[in-house]
Amino acid sequence: MTGLSEEVRPNKAFGWAAIDTSGVLSPFKFSTRGTGEKDVAFKVLYCGICHSDLHMIKNDWGTSIYPLVPGHEVVGEVTEVGSKVQKLKVGDRVGVGCMVGSCHSCDNCTNNLENYCPEMIFTYGAKYYDGTVTYGGYSNTMVVDEHFVVGIPENLPLDAAAPLLCAGITVYSPLRFYGLDKPGLHVGVVGLGGLGHLAVKFAKAMGTKVTVISTSPSKQKEALENLGADSFLAAIGTFDGIVDTVSAQHPLLPLLGLLKSHGKLVVLGIPEKPLELPAFPLIQGRKLLGGSMIGGMKETQEMIDFAAEHGIKADTEVIAMDYVNAAMDRLLKGDVKYRFVIDIGNTLKSIS
Amino acid sequence: MTGLSEEVRPNKAFGWAAIDTSGVLSPFKFSTRGTGEKDVAFKVLYCGICHSDLHMIKNDWGTSIYPLVPGHEVVGEVTEVGSKVQKLKVGDRVGVGCMVGSCHSCDNCTNNLENYCPEMIFTYGAKYYDGTVTYGGYSNTMVVDEHFVVGIPENLPLDAAAPLLCAGITVYSPLRFYGLDKPGLHVGVVGLGGLGHLAVKFAKAMGTKVTVISTSPSKQKEALENLGADSFLAAIGTFDGIVDTVSAQHPLLPLLGLLKSHGKLVVLGIPEKPLELPAFPLIQGRKLLGGSMIGGMKETQEMIDFAAEHGIKADTEVIAMDYVNAAMDRLLKGDVKYRFVIDIGNTLKSIS
Repeated sequence: MTGLSEEVRPNKAFGWAAIDTSGVLSPFKFSTRGTGEKDVAFKVLYCGICHSDLHMIKNDWGTSIYPLVPGHEVVGEVTEVGSKVQKLKVGDRVGVGCMVGSCHSCDNCTNNLENYCPEMIFTYGAKYYDGTVTYGGYSNTMVVDEHFVVGIPENLPLDAAAPLLCAGITVYSPLRFYGLDKPGLHVGVVGLGGLGHLAVKFAKAMGTKVTVISTSPSKQKEALENLGADSFLAAIGTFDGIVDTVSAQHPLLPLLGLLKSHGKLVVLGIPEKPLELPAFPLIQGRKLLGGSMIGGMKETQEMIDFAAEHGIKADTEVIAMDYVNAAMDRLLKGDVKYRFVIDIGNTLKSIS
Repeated sequence: MTGLSEEVRPNKAFGWAAIDTSGVLSPFKFSTRGTGEKDVAFKVLYCGICHSDLHMIKNDWGTSIYPLVPGHEVVGEVTEVGSKVQKLKVGDRVGVGCMVGSCHSCDNCTNNLENYCPEMIFTYGAKYYDGTVTYGGYSNTMVVDEHFVVGIPENLPLDAAAPLLCAGITVYSPLRFYGLDKPGLHVGVVGLGGLGHLAVKFAKAMGTKVTVISTSPSKQKEALENLGADSFLAAIGTFDGIVDTVSAQHPLLPLLGLLKSHGKLVVLGIPEKPLELPAFPLIQGRKLLGGSMIGGMKETQEMIDFAAEHGIKADTEVIAMDYVNAAMDRLLKGDVKYRFVIDIGNTLKSIS
């Protein structure tokens, strides 16, 4: 299946793609559109490996289009800008997250919530307006509408910034939206992985008291000493809000019990089966259950700037491009603290 | 079981009580405490029959204490006030809802949310501070701490006001708390019973567009012509919020689908089994699910005043006291539009 025919567009590019549901990634040549008047072209330097990349390369959600070049935690350096690009210039450090297009006219788009636009276009594996398939950041270069590109401040290392583009905004946005961002509040974080470890850091930086909620006592030292959590053991009726990053099936009743009355349980993972939700705690304590999905572009830039200001970096294990299949195997087992980031700039080899 | 021994307190009283799990109500003599310095004594004139009365007389929730005098939608006229009572005087028209006590010192109490106080005391079938059991409004008289008594404006008929004390505040409070009270918003109401018909009226009076969501086409005429709903058929993605008053098991996925992104589904009924909740719509549309339970005393007075100002009355079927067992049978079948109210003042016979 390698060497698939691909419509030839102006710019040659290469990366690693999954070519079938085995999910094995291998070198792949493709092309990108020319840099349009509102487009930014950039050289990819680092790309985080999100857990959803693992699902997408295997078509777990039934939506994958092969060949599939994953990667939506992408950072790099601008190489070309279109004539109407206003906020970026050649040489700028930039990032691209989960989306590269939206309608710009619906209620959500006009409220800076492109992430909830019904016509939002994912960064990879989706159909773009011109009918081509989008390719992600496991590649040497990307061309993206300026609107979906954020600037990365100088003091934020690019490798540690990459995971902020998906994992970071995914936890930052609900902390803000659900009002769990004020000193004096007590916030719980369930699941200490790529999302969870950033939730701890952002919630701390917002001034809240943070408790990691985990069934693994082994994570206590890590949570308290390395991530800055205030507490590990959780007591009933003590949380203003809980950010639940777990995708595996798990009971919600104990988590609702940990909330104060009027507390908020925010779920970010999507288990395969419906959750079992008893109505009683929602009613008796006026507790609420909400979700959240990444964030809009304005808020994504705000999150990046907030991270730079507060020195928030993802904890990463930087790997070479040709280690990606091994990394996927380890990610499946949860064997990473806390995010693999591929050093695209130094290790992605050109394909002859 | 009639003629049960009952600690004799200063004031003689009588009403109708369930004496075992058959739930059959019959005349019952009891006594109440004397009117304390912060208490209000009043003659009961009308009492609504709430669906929870039906559960309580049969001990469906396992918490009932027999003999049980139900009734928490109580209105009447003040007959005596304690020396430190400030807001009420003899002759005033008053109402009592679901609670008659709370701790007055917890976070909820200090925020006028006595309804969420962990030590809140229900109007009937609960243990009061003095160790006695509380008796509800299916009786000739009540003595209640002034704090839990609301005033009923002159222009609100007492029979139509009674159901506001539970059904009314139960729908009013979440419309306010979840921000579903602004002109321009589109609010759905699921379940057209005691709660639902008042939700339609309050939501309309708050200026929202109201659609009744029902699987019974027969309710269309009623919803549009008699209750003032704007619409009966519901379209996907069109609601800012939905107030779900249904206690029977029912799927939430279709209701979540009717919400716009960022819409709110508020559940007020408690089905016996946990609800099945798919996480995907919560996350993809940042929708949220919340509950609510009656309202605090400040808000209950506000709701009563709002009803008086906007001419909102419960639609009632006024019955005689000795019809109560037949009314319970009809209520079980949903055969009432929309609330039975017992004419206590004119039909409760004294027990010799």
